[in-house]
Amino acid sequence: MFVGIDLGGTSVKVGLVSLEGKMLFRAQREISDREPDAVIALCAALAKECVADHGSNWTHVTSVGVGCPGQISSGIVHAAANFPNWKDVPLQESLKTSLGVPTILVNDADAAVAAEHWVGAAASTKNFVMLTLGTGVGFGIVNNDEIVAGGTGCIEGGHIIMVPNGRLCGCTQRGCLEQYSSASALIGQAKLRASSSEVMTRLASVPIETITAKMVFGFADEGDDVCNELVAEVADYLGLACVNFCRTLDPEMIVFSGGLAEAGEPFMQRIRDAYNKYTWTRLPNPVVIEKASVGYDSGIIGAAAFAFRMSSKRFISSHF
Amino acid sequence: MFVGIDLGGTSVKVGLVSLEGKMLFRAQREISDREPDAVIALCAALAKECVADHGSNWTHVTSVGVGCPGQISSGIVHAAANFPNWKDVPLQESLKTSLGVPTILVNDADAAVAAEHWVGAAASTKNFVMLTLGTGVGFGIVNNDEIVAGGTGCIEGGHIIMVPNGRLCGCTQRGCLEQYSSASALIGQAKLRASSSEVMTRLASVPIETITAKMVFGFADEGDDVCNELVAEVADYLGLACVNFCRTLDPEMIVFSGGLAEAGEPFMQRIRDAYNKYTWTRLPNPVVIEKASVGYDSGIIGAAAFAFRMSSKRFISSHF
Repeated sequence: MFVGIDLGGTSVKVGLVSLEGKMLFRAQREISDREPDAVIALCAALAKECVADHGSNWTHVTSVGVGCPGQISSGIVHAAANFPNWKDVPLQESLKTSLGVPTILVNDADAAVAAEHWVGAAASTKNFVMLTLGTGVGFGIVNNDEIVAGGTGCIEGGHIIMVPNGRLCGCTQRGCLEQYSSASALIGQAKLRASSSEVMTRLASVPIETITAKMVFGFADEGDDVCNELVAEVADYLGLACVNFCRTLDPEMIVFSGGLAEAGEPFMQRIRDAYNKYTWTRLPNPVVIEKASVGYDSGIIGAAAFAFRMSSKRFISSHF
Repeated sequence: MFVGIDLGGTSVKVGLVSLEGKMLFRAQREISDREPDAVIALCAALAKECVADHGSNWTHVTSVGVGCPGQISSGIVHAAANFPNWKDVPLQESLKTSLGVPTILVNDADAAVAAEHWVGAAASTKNFVMLTLGTGVGFGIVNNDEIVAGGTGCIEGGHIIMVPNGRLCGCTQRGCLEQYSSASALIGQAKLRASSSEVMTRLASVPIETITAKMVFGFADEGDDVCNELVAEVADYLGLACVNFCRTLDPEMIVFSGGLAEAGEPFMQRIRDAYNKYTWTRLPNPVVIEKASVGYDSGIIGAAAFAFRMSSKRFISSHF
């Protein structure tokens, strides 16, 4: 089996994952001390605890994967927003020394993509794109069963420009997808509409600062026109973005995760409808648009997926 | 050495290409009979003639690559616009039998990309994007030294939607890059402007049907405001498209080929300026924007590049 470690901004989650990508056992601990040595020690201790509490031992652990946010390459965390004192921390080597098995460090966004590819919605595909609709719009690509990293490891599909000279984005560009289709964008537009006295909307009946994406989806379901328009706009831009990702990458599937994707199948159908409105009719459109299916444990399972993959490659290269 | 065959709509070009991607000898013949057997026989005869005329023999030819337009997979030409009677023609196997050496069939667009990767502008990169500005906008991706094919072999970056609900494209979509940045788009816009009596432009002094892209660039260089605007618009959309390809694929380089790219460095600089206007300033922008450098022989050299690559892989797998 494999150990997957999901090192988040506030807590560490560790899981034992089977060869089939099934979660066997899990543990979680809050991070109090954010210094590199303390966090590494916490990860190692929790992994050891997890193996012991499962009644297993380390001879059954083939390898360890650890997912972490931030700028990462060659096993090193160069910088991470949640760990301000981290600079070029050799997390992979430190954990490997501490745990005594092969260890691989990966970006947490890549881990989420790898989880969907291993046991999630995209498990049957070799080529897919994943969009995470949260505060921003995260993006990942799998091409021919490999995660695409790009030349400098900086692929940011949430910042493709959908509207030339459109809404100003925090990234300094104008018209980014993120400004039209993230949870933050939806909430921002909802607050604007709620504060306009010209329209009747249930958004006007709640304190503006309490508006959430879930609330907007809920009011839309209950027939509120303004909320319906807000959701339709988000779906429209996502459908348009799907066309562009299809033209550029020709994926078999586009998978949506994150807060907005929790709105589920009706929202997925709106995205599909928008895609069908914008895409060409000249050629068939085999792309499948689906909600991600791994959910809460995707960070652990995705990290374990990298561990699994690393071990398979070693096995293959040593036996053939 | 390798044989590269560039099977075009009107002629076959064959070349002998060295291990370093250098053209050693070349020959070309018009296609008169377009039936599959006749075209295959012509390709084989010209390849043999080429090797003989170079004073060489087939023991020195490691492998053959053949580039062909149309829908291609697994060595078979399923359909090709220039050869209406072709249906599932096993071009690769037929040529291999006829020539007696390993042969690989590839799409002509992929061949052009492979040529730039082997000995052209992008030879030093592992990740680049190539745009061919002709009647349409062709598109190719190299990621981690491999050409990206997508799930169904249908990547069409010229049809990303730049302007939601914009100009109608022949593909049935609206607002495609091709409608703003191909040679045809430039000529179409030039004809519209020439036929408008409201503006002063040198385009009005020539018969409308004789307007070419080269003419528009020439008048722009000579200070014609309308032509300058037309060229600026094309460059502007290409700069914007470069931003989107960078956000999606993070290439080290973007290479431009085709008729419009012949306008050279001043046009490249306009594209770079547009890119810099639209891209974020938050992060460095290491992408290099350059004109393709292989030129006329790219079809032959690119086909040979695939032959070279196929042979290297066989060599590696048989020796290690």
